[in-house]
Amino acid sequence: MSELEPPVPAATVARLPLYLRCLEALDAEAAPTVSSSHLAALAGVNAAKLRKDLSHLGSYGTRGVGYDVGNLMGEIRRELGVDETSPVIVIGLGNLGQALAKHGGFAGRGFPIVGLFDIDPNKIGQEMDGLIVQHLETVANTIAATGGHTAIIATPPDAAQVVTDQLIAAGITSVLNFAPTGVVVPDGVALRQVDLAVELQILSYYRPERVAERDAGRDRNLSAATS
Amino acid sequence: MSELEPPVPAATVARLPLYLRCLEALDAEAAPTVSSSHLAALAGVNAAKLRKDLSHLGSYGTRGVGYDVGNLMGEIRRELGVDETSPVIVIGLGNLGQALAKHGGFAGRGFPIVGLFDIDPNKIGQEMDGLIVQHLETVANTIAATGGHTAIIATPPDAAQVVTDQLIAAGITSVLNFAPTGVVVPDGVALRQVDLAVELQILSYYRPERVAERDAGRDRNLSAATS
Repeated sequence: MSELEPPVPAATVARLPLYLRCLEALDAEAAPTVSSSHLAALAGVNAAKLRKDLSHLGSYGTRGVGYDVGNLMGEIRRELGVDETSPVIVIGLGNLGQALAKHGGFAGRGFPIVGLFDIDPNKIGQEMDGLIVQHLETVANTIAATGGHTAIIATPPDAAQVVTDQLIAAGITSVLNFAPTGVVVPDGVALRQVDLAVELQILSYYRPERVAERDAGRDRNLSAATS
Repeated sequence: MSELEPPVPAATVARLPLYLRCLEALDAEAAPTVSSSHLAALAGVNAAKLRKDLSHLGSYGTRGVGYDVGNLMGEIRRELGVDETSPVIVIGLGNLGQALAKHGGFAGRGFPIVGLFDIDPNKIGQEMDGLIVQHLETVANTIAATGGHTAIIATPPDAAQVVTDQLIAAGITSVLNFAPTGVVVPDGVALRQVDLAVELQILSYYRPERVAERDAGRDRNLSAATS
């Protein structure tokens, strides 16, 4: 193998925020410990998968007691790197950008929004949720002043790549792309693409009509195989 | 085991839309076939995982040729249930709801938006992207007239559960919840919760600063273990 494998599988990384949210709910109820089966049920995964996922973090719990809620929250936060605050900037203040800017759920999870940028003269100078929309060409100043190296891209699709290139040149090292088009980034820059239509496609698989069709299909196959 | 296992693992289902998008791009370039290694590289997964994922659909490709692009697209669409059109309604026309209503990327993937609903008198009657925002109390008429049984919830968090209950009573069977709070649905209703902060948490794991820290940590552990 020529490259180091990432230490935690991508599917596990994607489930860690879910476990963290469940642990935060338990912590709010002052639960000191949680069994793997209870935490798994809260997260909607099976207990064996949960234990395997957490074993990648070196967390095995205590037989008969389970996991310490506070410790496990801390371990997941450290693993994700959300134990430190990561300031975020938003580029493109259309409906989606405004929705993200006003989301309210980011700052409490360690992602305060520290800058809003656009190139539309009608948007620049507007106040949104306590921040003034600035021209994209000034973005390097904000990155230097705030230490915010994470950008959310919410531009129209045809602007997404050129904006991404500008941001990286200005010092952005992590990009969350909500524009409905793919962008490419050089090595050493983290990228996550969010495609809202994908959520509908995944939901489609679990539609009750589809589940019923699949079950009927399997029953037919089974009776054909056994008749 | 008291219940039928879903026939395809959830992690595989979540990757099928990604493979589909890559295949659609290949199809647009008129590529008749694709090797598993090329498709895996396009999707950013390893080839063994891709082959395992597709084997759940009964697709194994042909040695030396790979997968037929058109056939595989058809199989994934059938498996996801996106080979048929699923009309969608949107509830809550704040910034996020408007962004979703105007997204433009849904109809082409089989999810035309056929109704917009709110309870705010200032929103009701407004035209957005060719549809008139209607009062939520009329939603059953639209469900009956359009056959749209999928709802996107983009309300404020404190309204999400009561709106979900109303929608299910009116005939909705699949719910995609964008409100930054969990909702519960009865058995027989499909639910997918989208938490936009989770995307930032997952991205955080892959930040170059974090990757460098982990690599340094492993190097330290390795030299401690071997010294």
